[in-house]
Amino acid sequence: MLDRPETSASGRKPSIDLHGLVTELFPINRSLTGAGVRETLGLVARHIDLEINEVASGTPALDWTVPMEWNIRGASISTLSGHRLVDFADNNLHVLGYSKPVQGIISRADLARHVHTLPDQPDLIPYRTGYFADDWGFCLSHELWQTMTDENYRVEIDSDLSSGSMTYGELFLPGQTDQEVLVTCHICHPSLANDNLSGIAVMTALAMRQARRTRRLGYRFLFLPATIGAITWLDRNQTMLDRVRYGIVLTCLGDPSPFHYKESRRGATIDRAVAHVLRHSGHQYEAMPFNPYGYDERQFCSPGFDLPVGCLMRGVHGTFPEYHTSADNLEFVRPECLDQSYALIESILDLLDQNRTFERVDGRGEPQLGRRGLYRAIAGQREAGGATQMDLLWFLNLADGKHSLLDMAIRADVPFARLEAAARLAVEAALVRERPSS
Amino acid sequence: MLDRPETSASGRKPSIDLHGLVTELFPINRSLTGAGVRETLGLVARHIDLEINEVASGTPALDWTVPMEWNIRGASISTLSGHRLVDFADNNLHVLGYSKPVQGIISRADLARHVHTLPDQPDLIPYRTGYFADDWGFCLSHELWQTMTDENYRVEIDSDLSSGSMTYGELFLPGQTDQEVLVTCHICHPSLANDNLSGIAVMTALAMRQARRTRRLGYRFLFLPATIGAITWLDRNQTMLDRVRYGIVLTCLGDPSPFHYKESRRGATIDRAVAHVLRHSGHQYEAMPFNPYGYDERQFCSPGFDLPVGCLMRGVHGTFPEYHTSADNLEFVRPECLDQSYALIESILDLLDQNRTFERVDGRGEPQLGRRGLYRAIAGQREAGGATQMDLLWFLNLADGKHSLLDMAIRADVPFARLEAAARLAVEAALVRERPSS
Amino acid sequence: MLDRPETSASGRKPSIDLHGLVTELFPINRSLTGAGVRETLGLVARHIDLEINEVASGTPALDWTVPMEWNIRGASISTLSGHRLVDFADNNLHVLGYSKPVQGIISRADLARHVHTLPDQPDLIPYRTGYFADDWGFCLSHELWQTMTDENYRVEIDSDLSSGSMTYGELFLPGQTDQEVLVTCHICHPSLANDNLSGIAVMTALAMRQARRTRRLGYRFLFLPATIGAITWLDRNQTMLDRVRYGIVLTCLGDPSPFHYKESRRGATIDRAVAHVLRHSGHQYEAMPFNPYGYDERQFCSPGFDLPVGCLMRGVHGTFPEYHTSADNLEFVRPECLDQSYALIESILDLLDQNRTFERVDGRGEPQLGRRGLYRAIAGQREAGGATQMDLLWFLNLADGKHSLLDMAIRADVPFARLEAAARLAVEAALVRERPSS
Repeated sequence: MLDRPETSASGRKPSIDLHGLVTELFPINRSLTGAGVRETLGLVARHIDLEINEVASGTPALDWTVPMEWNIRGASISTLSGHRLVDFADNNLHVLGYSKPVQGIISRADLARHVHTLPDQPDLIPYRTGYFADDWGFCLSHELWQTMTDENYRVEIDSDLSSGSMTYGELFLPGQTDQEVLVTCHICHPSLANDNLSGIAVMTALAMRQARRTRRLGYRFLFLPATIGAITWLDRNQTMLDRVRYGIVLTCLGDPSPFHYKESRRGATIDRAVAHVLRHSGHQYEAMPFNPYGYDERQFCSPGFDLPVGCLMRGVHGTFPEYHTSADNLEFVRPECLDQSYALIESILDLLDQNRTFERVDGRGEPQLGRRGLYRAIAGQREAGGATQMDLLWFLNLADGKHSLLDMAIRADVPFARLEAAARLAVEAALVRERPSS
Repeated sequence: MLDRPETSASGRKPSIDLHGLVTELFPINRSLTGAGVRETLGLVARHIDLEINEVASGTPALDWTVPMEWNIRGASISTLSGHRLVDFADNNLHVLGYSKPVQGIISRADLARHVHTLPDQPDLIPYRTGYFADDWGFCLSHELWQTMTDENYRVEIDSDLSSGSMTYGELFLPGQTDQEVLVTCHICHPSLANDNLSGIAVMTALAMRQARRTRRLGYRFLFLPATIGAITWLDRNQTMLDRVRYGIVLTCLGDPSPFHYKESRRGATIDRAVAHVLRHSGHQYEAMPFNPYGYDERQFCSPGFDLPVGCLMRGVHGTFPEYHTSADNLEFVRPECLDQSYALIESILDLLDQNRTFERVDGRGEPQLGRRGLYRAIAGQREAGGATQMDLLWFLNLADGKHSLLDMAIRADVPFARLEAAARLAVEAALVRERPSS
Repeated sequence: MLDRPETSASGRKPSIDLHGLVTELFPINRSLTGAGVRETLGLVARHIDLEINEVASGTPALDWTVPMEWNIRGASISTLSGHRLVDFADNNLHVLGYSKPVQGIISRADLARHVHTLPDQPDLIPYRTGYFADDWGFCLSHELWQTMTDENYRVEIDSDLSSGSMTYGELFLPGQTDQEVLVTCHICHPSLANDNLSGIAVMTALAMRQARRTRRLGYRFLFLPATIGAITWLDRNQTMLDRVRYGIVLTCLGDPSPFHYKESRRGATIDRAVAHVLRHSGHQYEAMPFNPYGYDERQFCSPGFDLPVGCLMRGVHGTFPEYHTSADNLEFVRPECLDQSYALIESILDLLDQNRTFERVDGRGEPQLGRRGLYRAIAGQREAGGATQMDLLWFLNLADGKHSLLDMAIRADVPFARLEAAARLAVEAALVRERPSS
């Protein structure tokens, strides 16, 4: 028996306040490792049954090594007279990620080698990291830096880089089959609302929703520090990767840009599914070919793995002016954009879950719909229930055990839900049976 | 030895007056079954050696059952004072197909539930059927219906629906090989000239012509009641369907619209052949992807059969205003349009018949044309017989046993007949041999 | 270890004066056979270690026969008063190729049947041959012919057609593998600078250059009389043709037209390689589909051989007004155009030679570039050596043993040399190993 759809696409609403969750997470200082990541996952875990994994510093992961844990308590640049010009407490972007501790008086000339600004966006603070650089640095607005003309400044970074662990979150929701959908986001950016928190919030709401549902497929939600998190997870899960039939990396889902979907390296059903949902979503969108830059799709699509994983975003990293600056803030991310993104991805997951293959039980030819009440008896007038008569004809024509519902919907060029409704009618009329998934 | 083409494409003329045959058939009342179908096939059988098949009502056919036979002698709506307002004798569209008998006085309000009109085309009578509806009805112009303001009317339908048989016609012309071309039309519409009779007339002329020719392929012409006729024929011929290599459903061939060809479900050589002939025909045309609505191609292309069958038409059902109305009449169908359609399909059949594969007998490389008289000896001047020198070079280059003449003509982008002429030259020069068809 | 590229594309210069070689070869009378061909090959052999092959007249070659050898010492048309109007010594185009000897007085009317002119280009002498025609003839400007109004003329052609041999040149430069690149041009045209000599000159310089290099592939340079030369070579080399992995016919490389590349019959890597080099060359170009007319690619691509051979040219035979006329002279061919053609083809050969497949030695996933010095440690700033960081990421992502460097360069849409540079970095970092070629 087929599930009835819970809601129409327009009725798909997250069960939590997405912008509220982004707001709650915003002030926390995150990096590849450290207390901020744990605090972030702790807040997420109030909504979903998240498994928190700690991987010790120095653990090998494929070609990589889990880094030292970085924590920071405070940082500032002050005048020698004690006036604080730059303070980590005001904005955690002020410190280069993974800065080693430093304390003392430094000439402006020496400080300049540790200061990062955006001359073309002089009022914004850039976001920079130096993960494996054995360095320290400050990020500040170019406007401020230009007013700093003293000969010397007092700098302090109260941080430590020490053996500890890297933290990531995982939620696996088993399905009726062994097939899995991988959904991931990154959790390693400090106060950046779109490039980080939008993905965390939308994914949390999706996980809550999938947890409540009967699931044909399993769903694995990964909250990962970028790159090393994905690599570590891949290393630890190598034997089960053949279960991953579809995957999607979520990022930058809160800004008002059109949707962008970056296709998987190998070309896969996930690409066709996302394109189909976008096409019928009413939203503007663009499909982009795979390239080996971007988010963790580049890890999932790396040689030897080559998983069917794409990346969904609204604004594309590196192309909007707020990217990796203090302007990627709570105003840049809009509640209605987060909600649209949620609804769209819910549709994608439902499509994947319901995308099955059917075959006719009554043998060859077109069945007689009239005697089953599936066809208005007066020919020449068309009318139908959930699915149109044409949808049902498409379904029955392609229910040959070789076409999935997605294949049918793409060929008929109608929303997936209408082929799904046609399938329901045909199953109820005992005209078709589902083929076991393989 | 290759046949010489009988005629150029522009010289392809039907051996009967197509519009005359349409005119002769027009007044007959046809439906899925009954005397009108038999009369129609009887007229066709004066031209071709048609086998008339009767299939008893109640015979199972795949998922369907052959219906009761319907016959009608007369029908009318009259005022209580005896004035006949609607009379089946005037136009057989006036009665809903498969109406059960009725007689008596009925209120206008009750009659309204049995009356079909076209408010947007108020001067036209619609064509409607209620094959499996246990209903009765009248079709009339909206203009007339609006003048009918009496409280009661006298209605009479002198019809009967009783166990009898369904009738269809078949002509099989065997060829030198087991491969067959299926050509079909529907014969179940009453006085509709384009959507029915144009196909019957053109197909009759094509059958006459193929009967006179040496045929490499077999040709099977089916005159079928729509849907149930095709389903019944499929049911009765399941063991020979693998012989059907090409198929084409003919309909709406008499109106002045550009040609439309609806491709087969699976994509097949017939689609490429028709597209090729249309491309070089000088006529406007459009190729349309398969969909599971339309004419009997939807039966031939249904799951379990999935035959290589497309549908050729000029105007597309449901898109021209005369469709399924009394305006689809003898004026709508034009003699020159019928003749063009005939000539085009004759070209298609000739292409299919002559579409063979050749391989070089003289081994590898380009043969020396000069010493065989196939190349003007003075290089730099080009001139040739039926085929151009370039056609001959294309033929010899692709005569590798893997390319059919159609493949060659499409790659060279020249009319099929020119590659055929080149093949003739090469066969005469003993440069190539035909590959046995498989 | 990978070779460093000797030069950038812009630094690719022939080591001889190409236009000088064309000028040196221009006055020689060439035909399919004879002293002029030997003299031409003799001049080429001063630069490269050319093997001169003589094939006796009458030798069978596939479907053909090596023709009689033709030599000519002089020819003229004079007035009866002894005034020379047309003299072979002035321009060897004046005599129809393979003219048999003739001497005597002939009426203008009879002479007209042996005279070839270009009424639409009245000041130009056409180029014509009558290889297998047992004929004689003169080619002259239409302007001159119109002034020749005497009743009779004295004609003399001092030629002989006798058993001898056909001459062609071959240079094979072995490589580290059995795979070969075939590069050919035709050598049978008399004083035509673009349609003949440009190819000979560019190919000579390419052969000189390849002879000096370490070669992964073998290179086979063929200087052939058109058609019969190619056919004879194919006949004599049938057992080694599977070594020919790439082939390119060179012609018309000295005029200022955009480049034109005619693709191989079967579609092959050579086509993708040339298209890629052209796309990134900065030159205008057009790819043309295969057709069975043109130069010797039609022989190499004939049935039974179907080798991966295309044809590179600037102006396309038959489309520029100078084609096969006395205007295809030393002014029509420009030094800078010859040099551009040389540089382009050198790039193509280098691409073919360096087009290998790599696979990662370090297993799965994306390697850590930072600890190998391959990634600037401060994320967010991009900078790199020869290859960009993105090039290296593309290389590592596609180094799965299934993608050649050309595949990668096409997918990344960057010049091949950048992927090659990325490969060099990755090999030096021991991240990848080359897959043995197959």
